[in-house]
Amino acid sequence: MTAQGQAVSDPPAVPGWRRPGRRPGAHHTADRILDTALAMFAESGLDSVTVRGIAARADVDAALVHHFYRSKEGLFTAAVDGAAVPPGLAELLREPLTPVGEALVALFLAHWERPEVRPRLLAVLRSVPSSPVAAGLMRDCLDQHLTAALAEAGADRAAERAALIGAQLIGLAIVRYVLRSEPLASLPVDRAAAAAGPVMEMYLAGPVARLRRAG
Amino acid sequence: MTAQGQAVSDPPAVPGWRRPGRRPGAHHTADRILDTALAMFAESGLDSVTVRGIAARADVDAALVHHFYRSKEGLFTAAVDGAAVPPGLAELLREPLTPVGEALVALFLAHWERPEVRPRLLAVLRSVPSSPVAAGLMRDCLDQHLTAALAEAGADRAAERAALIGAQLIGLAIVRYVLRSEPLASLPVDRAAAAAGPVMEMYLAGPVARLRRAG
Repeated sequence: MTAQGQAVSDPPAVPGWRRPGRRPGAHHTADRILDTALAMFAESGLDSVTVRGIAARADVDAALVHHFYRSKEGLFTAAVDGAAVPPGLAELLREPLTPVGEALVALFLAHWERPEVRPRLLAVLRSVPSSPVAAGLMRDCLDQHLTAALAEAGADRAAERAALIGAQLIGLAIVRYVLRSEPLASLPVDRAAAAAGPVMEMYLAGPVARLRRAG
Repeated sequence: MTAQGQAVSDPPAVPGWRRPGRRPGAHHTADRILDTALAMFAESGLDSVTVRGIAARADVDAALVHHFYRSKEGLFTAAVDGAAVPPGLAELLREPLTPVGEALVALFLAHWERPEVRPRLLAVLRSVPSSPVAAGLMRDCLDQHLTAALAEAGADRAAERAALIGAQLIGLAIVRYVLRSEPLASLPVDRAAAAAGPVMEMYLAGPVARLRRAG
């Protein structure tokens, strides 16, 4: 989950993928497969897409998809690589004395607004409900990135806070980008961040005393 | 979106479905198809399931599925009918002077905890990201039920509040029931409601002054 800035057309970083040497055009073909797959995952999620369907739309033999990416899941991982964690998240949360709730929502939504990032996030979000691979990827985001960043920033009950913050962010993304429900769908990023910011602030820095009694 | 309390085995309420008269066993067959479809939708979402697959698992001819339910979407609508709106929602929101944020989260999560409701909600949630039918159903919930109930209770900016409340509830459901991410997954309902309650209170009754400037 690194290299967030890489273009979608960069070589996929999956086991089994080999930088093309002797076969001219192989890199181009791998890219075309990846771009096609990403578009299809973003439209309808991992489970609804088949390797056969990707191969047909990319106009290559299905065996080539397996050659470059091993499996549909390998292709999915390569296609969405790194997109789920907005750059700057850890840095933002390192400001424990500053209210960063609104900035956190703005960072998240601005990440979604990037044309090169949106399809990858949509692919993840559309795949999470039906694919264990995508669900695992998102769980890792909550556990390894958000919880870790909160813990590093000195927050108590970091896992609980991360779960609640993650739930709020995922919910916002679904209503705004999947359901496209108004008025949230067309609200400018700064307005949406202003609306949800105080809630984030509460989850980030508010008391979680009643949660503390749990378990 | 009525009849929330009906059992999954009740006759499906879709156009084209006829209460079986002369053909003995037809009702039983329609029920078996519905139960099988619901289990499959809850496992992997509308898009990943085929009529052929449902027929095979229910051990009936695919033509019978079409006979009883017309289409996969008709079957989906019949299977999840009414589950998306927790009973008592409108009544709860009719208490404008009482803080009901915690009660609202508790009502929502208790609805999810019902064994006869959970598969139907999972089916909707797993289908929303990739199916326009399911997305439309959830958008209707936000627009027609939550917004309407808030407006009736006298809330200003009811649509904005409904979008934010809906986002938070959907996010909680995904983290708790789809990702099953801890600690939220195994937190008792009352503890989870206590944790998210103040946030709901803010969305229900807090100032939305900055949202007001939008648009």
